[in-house]
Amino acid sequence: MSESKPKWYESVGEMGDIVISSRIRLARNLAEHPFPARLGASAARDILDRVADFITGSAGGAEFELVDLSRADALTIGSLVERHLISPELASKGGSRGAVLSRDESVSVMINEEDHLRIQVLGSGLCLNECMKKADMLDDLLEGHFSYAWDDRLGYLTHCPTNLGTGLRASVMLHLPAHTDTGEIRQLAATLGKLGFAVRGLYGEGSAAVGSMFQVSNQLTLGPTEQETLDRLVQVVKSTIDRERFLRAKMEEENPTFLPDKVWRAYGILKYARKISAGEAMELLSVVREGVSIGEIKGVDMALLNRLIWSIQPNQLCLAAGRALGEQERDAARAAYIRDSI
Amino acid sequence: MSESKPKWYESVGEMGDIVISSRIRLARNLAEHPFPARLGASAARDILDRVADFITGSAGGAEFELVDLSRADALTIGSLVERHLISPELASKGGSRGAVLSRDESVSVMINEEDHLRIQVLGSGLCLNECMKKADMLDDLLEGHFSYAWDDRLGYLTHCPTNLGTGLRASVMLHLPAHTDTGEIRQLAATLGKLGFAVRGLYGEGSAAVGSMFQVSNQLTLGPTEQETLDRLVQVVKSTIDRERFLRAKMEEENPTFLPDKVWRAYGILKYARKISAGEAMELLSVVREGVSIGEIKGVDMALLNRLIWSIQPNQLCLAAGRALGEQERDAARAAYIRDSI
Repeated sequence: MSESKPKWYESVGEMGDIVISSRIRLARNLAEHPFPARLGASAARDILDRVADFITGSAGGAEFELVDLSRADALTIGSLVERHLISPELASKGGSRGAVLSRDESVSVMINEEDHLRIQVLGSGLCLNECMKKADMLDDLLEGHFSYAWDDRLGYLTHCPTNLGTGLRASVMLHLPAHTDTGEIRQLAATLGKLGFAVRGLYGEGSAAVGSMFQVSNQLTLGPTEQETLDRLVQVVKSTIDRERFLRAKMEEENPTFLPDKVWRAYGILKYARKISAGEAMELLSVVREGVSIGEIKGVDMALLNRLIWSIQPNQLCLAAGRALGEQERDAARAAYIRDSI
Repeated sequence: MSESKPKWYESVGEMGDIVISSRIRLARNLAEHPFPARLGASAARDILDRVADFITGSAGGAEFELVDLSRADALTIGSLVERHLISPELASKGGSRGAVLSRDESVSVMINEEDHLRIQVLGSGLCLNECMKKADMLDDLLEGHFSYAWDDRLGYLTHCPTNLGTGLRASVMLHLPAHTDTGEIRQLAATLGKLGFAVRGLYGEGSAAVGSMFQVSNQLTLGPTEQETLDRLVQVVKSTIDRERFLRAKMEEENPTFLPDKVWRAYGILKYARKISAGEAMELLSVVREGVSIGEIKGVDMALLNRLIWSIQPNQLCLAAGRALGEQERDAARAAYIRDSI
């Protein structure tokens, strides 16, 4: 991947003090082939090549490049997972599979994951509609060339019934430290669940919440239209943001020294630690992010914190070092990298 | 107390990386009076006035001043306890009692504590013999003027039989973080106990160990001479220092990043916290002290750390603020004071 072009996460978007990122994902399959689970090896290779060639050969295709996972090394694959550019499932399965990625890392088309195509668009802050527009354009481009598996009554056909219909998964990554500190995050998850939205940790399904970062995503793909899905999610996210702000103000009123002390201690540890695990670093960066968000910590760039969340992950550190690092080496390299950055 | 003259703890003495301070205490009673426990009010006042007048009126007496505890406010009394200039017992009992203190706070003569006189000399680093010399001079001066309670067979007579004989308690305050980290401190206490030495926390008998700081003191006052007592204590302290250095080197060899990380994290928290309790501050200052001691942290003065241990105590903070502070105010003032100092 080119390292020169700014990445999508190196900016701060709308409501960026609380919304880290927005994400749109469309599941699509090609009509003339069985789903990947039953796909033969030569057909899988054929789909991978044809889709990649089509995208990179189209207008604007110079922005894209294929990462062929059957030929990539473990470090590269791990780093793509860490940056949410490919799923852990695509990384770990065998066979001909890959991802076509834009140089700013905002667009990724996974090929031969659970479905033939997974179009994904990432953006900074709350920008679901902008992400949807980009995903739609790519979707239209592909649909003009390939024949999608489609049913007039059900909509887009997918491997898993939970994606049937729109094939759309819209999600927003929120930073909710006050929900965590007050324990209200459990109530939020329960409430959003009833409304048809899931609340998950940073690395999706089954992953634990790290650093008070939570993904909120739609569950329904059959029934509501794409726009209805986005509108409802935006509504839910905005009321969650309001609640987070309310909880922060309440904590500030009830115990005015709690937050300043908490955020500065986290800053102090990050500024001086000589070794640090990814988990602890995420927690502390999350707290520093809160400090910047409430205006207590000045002179630390929110975009830098967004970037650090991704760049301190194990595989990124190895890539930066140009070699595989052991756990102790990574912890030392991570601490040094953070010290020099903040 | 005059604040202009440097205090004894604002310097770093012999083996000052591990030995914080040395202390000599002599228990003495006046022959013609019952022990303080059975002393009448007018006799107590008489002893307080006579001893104080004698010391402050003698050659060099301008260096001393009397703090009459029956007339002092609680803040002043509390701060004298925190600085080890008077005992908690003297502070809390009633009646005519006081302490004659030297301006550098190295010498304190408590009057009407458990015994009529408790001559105490404090010094930085390992300096038991120097402290003994100063205590002896004051003892000789007092003995030339007052008649001590003395028995040819037993030696100096004291209220508590554990002080009978020499009336000498010699103690050394050691900073033993590696003994704490390895858990070897328990074994040390057991071994020294068998040799006739007690290992206690920072504030003496019954106090918990804070910040890996331990007092080692002689238990025997009947039998060995003063010099024998000091020689044995110095011997025990030196072997403890050797062991502490060995344990540090072993930790460094086995896990070279453990100590640097530990000491810099402590520094980072102290440098940025917005509120901190006395207990946590002592713990962290102790760790920073270790960092300076092993040469990892440079640019932080060991004498400053010695001073901070005393000056962040609750009553000192109130005295510095010029008023009584609540706990929350003290925690904020303590954090600010440390931030500005290190």
